[in-house]
Amino acid sequence: MQIRILVTGGTFDKEYDELTGTLFFRDTHVQEMLRLGRARLALSVETVMMIDSLDMDDPGRAAIVARCRDAAERAIVVTHGTDTMVETAGALAAAGLDGRTIVLTGAMVPYAFGSSDGLFNLGSALSFVQVLPPGVYVAMNGRHFRWDAVRKNRQTGVFEATEDGSQEFRRSGE
Amino acid sequence: MQIRILVTGGTFDKEYDELTGTLFFRDTHVQEMLRLGRARLALSVETVMMIDSLDMDDPGRAAIVARCRDAAERAIVVTHGTDTMVETAGALAAAGLDGRTIVLTGAMVPYAFGSSDGLFNLGSALSFVQVLPPGVYVAMNGRHFRWDAVRKNRQTGVFEATEDGSQEFRRSGE
Amino acid sequence: MQIRILVTGGTFDKEYDELTGTLFFRDTHVQEMLRLGRARLALSVETVMMIDSLDMDDPGRAAIVARCRDAAERAIVVTHGTDTMVETAGALAAAGLDGRTIVLTGAMVPYAFGSSDGLFNLGSALSFVQVLPPGVYVAMNGRHFRWDAVRKNRQTGVFEATEDGSQEFRRSGE
Amino acid sequence: MQIRILVTGGTFDKEYDELTGTLFFRDTHVQEMLRLGRARLALSVETVMMIDSLDMDDPGRAAIVARCRDAAERAIVVTHGTDTMVETAGALAAAGLDGRTIVLTGAMVPYAFGSSDGLFNLGSALSFVQVLPPGVYVAMNGRHFRWDAVRKNRQTGVFEATEDGSQEFRRSGE
Repeated sequence: MQIRILVTGGTFDKEYDELTGTLFFRDTHVQEMLRLGRARLALSVETVMMIDSLDMDDPGRAAIVARCRDAAERAIVVTHGTDTMVETAGALAAAGLDGRTIVLTGAMVPYAFGSSDGLFNLGSALSFVQVLPPGVYVAMNGRHFRWDAVRKNRQTGVFEATEDGSQEFRRSGE
Repeated sequence: MQIRILVTGGTFDKEYDELTGTLFFRDTHVQEMLRLGRARLALSVETVMMIDSLDMDDPGRAAIVARCRDAAERAIVVTHGTDTMVETAGALAAAGLDGRTIVLTGAMVPYAFGSSDGLFNLGSALSFVQVLPPGVYVAMNGRHFRWDAVRKNRQTGVFEATEDGSQEFRRSGE
Repeated sequence: MQIRILVTGGTFDKEYDELTGTLFFRDTHVQEMLRLGRARLALSVETVMMIDSLDMDDPGRAAIVARCRDAAERAIVVTHGTDTMVETAGALAAAGLDGRTIVLTGAMVPYAFGSSDGLFNLGSALSFVQVLPPGVYVAMNGRHFRWDAVRKNRQTGVFEATEDGSQEFRRSGE
Repeated sequence: MQIRILVTGGTFDKEYDELTGTLFFRDTHVQEMLRLGRARLALSVETVMMIDSLDMDDPGRAAIVARCRDAAERAIVVTHGTDTMVETAGALAAAGLDGRTIVLTGAMVPYAFGSSDGLFNLGSALSFVQVLPPGVYVAMNGRHFRWDAVRKNRQTGVFEATEDGSQEFRRSGE
């Protein structure tokens, strides 16, 4: 199974600029994370943009939709900042990319900071994308959610089901 | 969905003894890894044993089978050393634990050594166990394999499909 | 030999707030760093303030001077943000705390970010403070400088000697 | 001041072989540690051998003595396993390398394991070597000891003064 990873930035890829003391983006860490995870998947990684998801706008979402539509792969993982991940998931669902399984994931702590949930989430998203039926999903906190059944709780930083629908596509036949 | 994690040791949980300069087992790091991964799953973690998988024997495998049979959960992740993981998967399959999805995972580098694939694999295994149909699987290198369709390549340290069956239960309907 | 560590914040102690995506101060990491370094020194650690050194002002410096003057120890390490470390060193020198060896140190990358120079610098500062004659020094980049013979190069982030005086108190008798 | 670092192996430089599950030596991490520590010293790093200090023998010690004698630098740091560090310090002292300050240091935990005291000790040793009078010293646990006034406590892993001589060369004039 061929998988495409579309990188859009987010906390996942933030780094610390030691001259200014601020956080910034340089290159994605996804390739390094895949190497660390000893991933042996048929993967291609493509950087669409490197932005804070608070700066994600409609043209940005249109660019992500276009890359998904153009991708040869039917399994796509999108790395994305957590603040507006659900909105981008909605834009992808609205685009009607039938036949594709698209999983958005991100991190609460930058990978470069050594204590990140990013490696865990990347392993999770890459696994879900291989086995979930076509559709658009968010994979965070070890769980997966349909795009229309999830929100980020900004008080706790945890992704939650907005209804009990989060598990309903879990296993065909159940 | 309730998930049980059965800990059996393996590289995953090895630590460095700074007085003797050797590797040893103390407590599992699984709880710490789940916290780091911000996992929000309905989980219970149970330590069955803490051994190197080269020391796994039939009574050990029988103990793991018994814990799986006794578990209330239908989704079970077993952390296990990589050297004999496939043999233990076979013992679990032979036990005929119908209706359960059991995923074995491990690590090539101890979590405590800071450069481990363990966090990636744990995220992967916990995701696969939520969506795969009942059966016994190995989750390593970002992939999942049926128990009877995988081997560890000892030259490369990579888990490989022994036939093209590794993907066949991927998605019902395909 | 008794040593006092006065903590004032700086990059050393910055953490990442995963809810807001910003850097902030909580508690100092100095105790954890000393444990990691297996330090076995007669030490007391005192937090004077927890601020970015760009926010250090005259009352702040006066507070640090007062703590140095009141300290029972003749060997004092001050952790401090790098941007105004030299100015605080000057204030300490101007205070005329005769008989005390005071070494300021800091970090370019937060300790919590896993790739910090902080542990190296702490080992360095604690060593210099045990052997340098009374005076006020900056210890960064593995070197020590007299308070009046150093500046931070803001383009490179490196501390440099402003004259060849940086080594002159190196070894008595040379 | 020119400093030479002589690398001899020890826990400092041990790595984990993920295929065999054992510890081994490859290249030294000292250059990487110096980069991480943002060291800006006039340094040359030379690998003499890469061995466990339990395997250090008289020819090995003679090789280290020879390298110290041949070195153009008067300040030398030797990285060394902790188990026989004191014996090698004794061999260096017996060689009568007058005019040189030689500081031996090591680590209790491999640098590659992410929780090492190595970075702290390297910062410490490089600082002591710049300021101590000629002689042979051990720098561990944030302290320095004369070669004939120290032992490793094998129960605790801590270096201890064998007499109260450990501080006597601390500051000239005191």
